[in-house]
Amino acid sequence: MVNPSSSQHAGAERRLRDLGIVLPNAPHPLGAYVETVQSGSLLFLSGMLPVRDGKLQFVGRLGKELDESAGRDALRTATLNALSAAKAHVGSLDRVTRVISVKVYLATSGDFYNQPIVADAASELLRDVFGEDKMSVRSVLGLAALPLGAPVMLEVTLEVDN
Amino acid sequence: MVNPSSSQHAGAERRLRDLGIVLPNAPHPLGAYVETVQSGSLLFLSGMLPVRDGKLQFVGRLGKELDESAGRDALRTATLNALSAAKAHVGSLDRVTRVISVKVYLATSGDFYNQPIVADAASELLRDVFGEDKMSVRSVLGLAALPLGAPVMLEVTLEVDN
Amino acid sequence: MVNPSSSQHAGAERRLRDLGIVLPNAPHPLGAYVETVQSGSLLFLSGMLPVRDGKLQFVGRLGKELDESAGRDALRTATLNALSAAKAHVGSLDRVTRVISVKVYLATSGDFYNQPIVADAASELLRDVFGEDKMSVRSVLGLAALPLGAPVMLEVTLEVDN
Repeated sequence: MVNPSSSQHAGAERRLRDLGIVLPNAPHPLGAYVETVQSGSLLFLSGMLPVRDGKLQFVGRLGKELDESAGRDALRTATLNALSAAKAHVGSLDRVTRVISVKVYLATSGDFYNQPIVADAASELLRDVFGEDKMSVRSVLGLAALPLGAPVMLEVTLEVDN
Repeated sequence: MVNPSSSQHAGAERRLRDLGIVLPNAPHPLGAYVETVQSGSLLFLSGMLPVRDGKLQFVGRLGKELDESAGRDALRTATLNALSAAKAHVGSLDRVTRVISVKVYLATSGDFYNQPIVADAASELLRDVFGEDKMSVRSVLGLAALPLGAPVMLEVTLEVDN
Repeated sequence: MVNPSSSQHAGAERRLRDLGIVLPNAPHPLGAYVETVQSGSLLFLSGMLPVRDGKLQFVGRLGKELDESAGRDALRTATLNALSAAKAHVGSLDRVTRVISVKVYLATSGDFYNQPIVADAASELLRDVFGEDKMSVRSVLGLAALPLGAPVMLEVTLEVDN
């Protein structure tokens, strides 16, 4: 049984275990780019889709083919891919000193305004893994379309020890 | 009466006063994120909406419910929020050594192309406050929808003395 | 005749010549901003449009007025503008130590999903100029509209020797 207070000052790897999260395989690029680039202490990640084992898990637009709840599930899947890609780069997520920025892109037909609720699926997972004191800035955007017809994409920039 | 030449080399705080600008209260996050994150000398800001005291001041899309002039007013409101958030972080805007990047997001039905004119409401205010020599790079995008139905969102990254 | 292996470890300027690429004039801002800002070793670029000599070379949306092939041509034009703007800043593209991030914005009516294929027109050109070992992270987004009715916009961040 998890004692939340005992893991409050624990690192991200310990929190992942406490939360029962097993990271998926790191995602693969869809073209002539890479999933992570580090410059100094900044770790940039490619836009993450709700893909698992190379296959898109959700297709459609929010407020049209998919509702808020499906949007949150899709974004959580994309967030796990971001964590996996970051871990593949730095070895241990304990080396993440700050989540700098999160951009949440939502495919929508244009009349879906509960974007912050969906976006929180990413922000809350990142907060649970890295802690309250490492929360990021955030922007949330409603897009006409995302690659492959995905409903969500997530772009994360991290600060890592260098 | 303001003598422009005398404030040319003045700091941002002096220029704000010369322009008669009183910054609004700093905005509050709509979810599990924060308004500012500093990493080294980079100060990242969350996407700013045209909110005042927690209430959206403008709703609708450019070229549809709102015209160019309303878009500029909305973006100016968002820009003041960015300045307020930055000031809450660094204490004095005189510590801003450069406006690095500005991203202007405009909600539009798709047939509104005067985006640079609207975007200049942000760029011109930032230039007037920080000076010609601190102007940023910029991207302007027409979006299907923004959080809460807002017509504009502004994302600013600053360089601050460290 | 080009010997690819001989230019494998060559700098970007040599590769540009081997590829027969002559860079266009650097683009000009459409408002109160600049095309490049350097902070430390990070070189930020404004969003680049498919403009040549101040005139938009392509107008319309992907999947509607323009097809995939025209989208790739437009993005290649925007990428050459990015290279030109970067070179104007650093003097020689040999000073680029890494392509950090690439964001590809595509104007689309919403039913165009071959975005990665179009985006690769930018990624492949940057790879050919800077090399496999300097490939960037990438995000690709489908937008409702871009400034002036452009079909594509490209945003690049570079790491340069400092």
